[in-house]
Amino acid sequence: MIELNFSNMMEEVIGVKGISERRLENLRDKIESAYKQIVQRKWKELEFLDLPFRDTAQIKKIAAEVRDDSDNFLILGIGGSALGPGAILEALSPLHNLQKSPKVFIYDNVDPRTLKQILELTDLKKTTVNIISKSGSTAETAAAFMILWDEMKKVLGDDAAKRFIATTDPYSGSLRRIAMENKMRTLPINEGIVGRFSVLSPVGLLLCEVIGFDSDELLRGARDIHEKCLIHELWQNPAVMFSALLYLMESEEKRNINVMIPYSDSLKLLSGWFCQLWAESLGKLGMGMTPYPSVGTTDQHSQLQLWMEGPEDKVIVFIRIDDYGADITIPASFPDIEGMSYLSGHKLSELIKAEEESTELAIAKTERPSMTIQVPAIDTYHLGQLFHFFEFATTYTGFLMGINPFNQPGVEEGKNFTYGMMGKKGFASRKSEVETARQKKVCWKI
Amino acid sequence: MIELNFSNMMEEVIGVKGISERRLENLRDKIESAYKQIVQRKWKELEFLDLPFRDTAQIKKIAAEVRDDSDNFLILGIGGSALGPGAILEALSPLHNLQKSPKVFIYDNVDPRTLKQILELTDLKKTTVNIISKSGSTAETAAAFMILWDEMKKVLGDDAAKRFIATTDPYSGSLRRIAMENKMRTLPINEGIVGRFSVLSPVGLLLCEVIGFDSDELLRGARDIHEKCLIHELWQNPAVMFSALLYLMESEEKRNINVMIPYSDSLKLLSGWFCQLWAESLGKLGMGMTPYPSVGTTDQHSQLQLWMEGPEDKVIVFIRIDDYGADITIPASFPDIEGMSYLSGHKLSELIKAEEESTELAIAKTERPSMTIQVPAIDTYHLGQLFHFFEFATTYTGFLMGINPFNQPGVEEGKNFTYGMMGKKGFASRKSEVETARQKKVCWKI
Repeated sequence: MIELNFSNMMEEVIGVKGISERRLENLRDKIESAYKQIVQRKWKELEFLDLPFRDTAQIKKIAAEVRDDSDNFLILGIGGSALGPGAILEALSPLHNLQKSPKVFIYDNVDPRTLKQILELTDLKKTTVNIISKSGSTAETAAAFMILWDEMKKVLGDDAAKRFIATTDPYSGSLRRIAMENKMRTLPINEGIVGRFSVLSPVGLLLCEVIGFDSDELLRGARDIHEKCLIHELWQNPAVMFSALLYLMESEEKRNINVMIPYSDSLKLLSGWFCQLWAESLGKLGMGMTPYPSVGTTDQHSQLQLWMEGPEDKVIVFIRIDDYGADITIPASFPDIEGMSYLSGHKLSELIKAEEESTELAIAKTERPSMTIQVPAIDTYHLGQLFHFFEFATTYTGFLMGINPFNQPGVEEGKNFTYGMMGKKGFASRKSEVETARQKKVCWKI
Repeated sequence: MIELNFSNMMEEVIGVKGISERRLENLRDKIESAYKQIVQRKWKELEFLDLPFRDTAQIKKIAAEVRDDSDNFLILGIGGSALGPGAILEALSPLHNLQKSPKVFIYDNVDPRTLKQILELTDLKKTTVNIISKSGSTAETAAAFMILWDEMKKVLGDDAAKRFIATTDPYSGSLRRIAMENKMRTLPINEGIVGRFSVLSPVGLLLCEVIGFDSDELLRGARDIHEKCLIHELWQNPAVMFSALLYLMESEEKRNINVMIPYSDSLKLLSGWFCQLWAESLGKLGMGMTPYPSVGTTDQHSQLQLWMEGPEDKVIVFIRIDDYGADITIPASFPDIEGMSYLSGHKLSELIKAEEESTELAIAKTERPSMTIQVPAIDTYHLGQLFHFFEFATTYTGFLMGINPFNQPGVEEGKNFTYGMMGKKGFASRKSEVETARQKKVCWKI
């Protein structure tokens, strides 16, 4: 089971910049209200809580077909539809495309250079395309889908649809309609599932199975932590404690940046996934914390200086790994060189763990706050725990802040301008607004 | 030539949250002092300014040998020694390892899982290892080097040294000593070159040549913008303007986060490179801004909500690309589906540019500030301009802040604890400090 160590958040350990037990106790009413909203299921978007308990048979069946007949598995999706699968891929099968089949490509942009390269690298006859979009109308995913559909038609004619899997709303939306009309395989994203909370739905599970990992293990991990995140007592519930501490650090201490630093290359994209979850869920009404994606030890040589001596605006969340599943002993290659020989005989895992602990302590000595999530191993089971834990924690935090963590009203404006420029019906006025703004822009450049 | 458009930073365009011309004019004395420190070369670390004017013959010669006899090129380095080469690789040759030779691996961590995989994937007899470390004593790089040296010895015996290139201080340090004793090929990092300002030194140039790109073009781009960044007039110097605006936004408007969002998958690591440069150079004495690595359009579905409606603590820096060097027209795949058909006939490049402009405008409408760096194309020449521009801008900003942008005193403490735990001579007391801290930590966990 993953564990939360919050010693270095506490006044008792790091001094006055820390949080006292009393301040946590003072939050009890807000915590109670947050807890109730979850337990009483006051929002339909809390359906993500049920995902660990769903059946995976249909996903396993489709994944087996993909593994059987595909050299490439291409995901078209953006935001939660890409970050969840990406985090799973990187954590469970790092450097995947250099050694395993099917190769996996996740196209989560409309960069023409990237798509052109993917098309050059993949034989479409041996490629399965998984379009992931609840509505089907996300512009980026729609554009990529239209291109892939056309290319596949050129190669396979009427058989094109057999190489697509649509992960989408089970009842409505344009992708559902296209999938039905063309008899594509489909997997459901229920109405109550918000994109950034969808990793334990078919959005993430299909990829997990396609790369040869048991999605039931992801869910088993999530189920085991599920109960812990519902314990009705602050001091025993890691999700509530995580939320309460970061909430207090932001609202009372003005620490508006939360760094997420796993000490593992394979968890870089888990940071990215978390950052979307945290930013998009909590950044509204002038509130919110900025989640910062990082990786250790690497960023000790990039960001640590700023964390140690920059402004007092951060809380650092370490992810510490117990077992890396691989190890190498540092040999006595240069016994005469004092600046190196002390490393001989130690394992790489010792070194990376020592660096993690050293960085924690160095930060604590400046009296700046940090937390540590201890992860026994980077495997399917614990990855499921991390996902579900962070989803719980984000939800609790949103409710502590008194906001709706499930919407994202702030992104509509930009979409509307794009619709205008792309000539979508009903958005002509937005196009002229863009043109007016362009005039203003020309005066100020070098 | 790259261009800076700062309209959306200005009061005249976005209103009171913007900067007025007068406030910029008020900064003249500080700017003059910063300018003088650069022009008069008051710091030895300003040597990076000379890099675009250096000869590349030796680098080209070594790179030709690598291309000739290697299937793999493995860089061992961390921080600036890895981020510069990484940014070049991703920008110039995306998805490199799936299509080109030699394959490139950049090991910038001590994650045992990653190194184990790299060793499994590479035939050492056909691998060149480039160790990049000015001193040679960086623990992470030293550990990796010791392992690779030992492995290579097992395979090649006395010929092992022939497969190494040491990029290091030309006169001193443990890596220099080992290289000399073993007759390794070497390339210099002069004493005046700080890691994060080293990308246009052999640190980045060798990789550039190894993957088949002309490093002289990188330098030519840098030289062309060099003159512009030395113009003695705020309104004509993009580096000074960039610095002055972000400095004012931080010091007077409390905007402590600078988001860097290139609209290109290939420039993701350029963001990462910039983030190290900005964070480590400026984060000291309680000051500094947090640089945030992002990518468009992807992060519109991840971070944009927070930028639009979260706290007023950010400045967004867009990087807009004119020519992606590749394009795809979106076909009329589903003419009956209104949510998709408006995209038909447009090019992907139109869509990504429209999204960039839309996001700029949406943010400007909330009166929040942003800037845009316009890049004609993602090629060697313009990449050189971006690197040199950001190095100039970081230096100007450091001098405006009145700090030393070239040191990183805050990272020593953590290193010392690691030395203690690894048993380095003279650090025993640090080890006991770690053990005492561990006791304190056990009480607060769930």
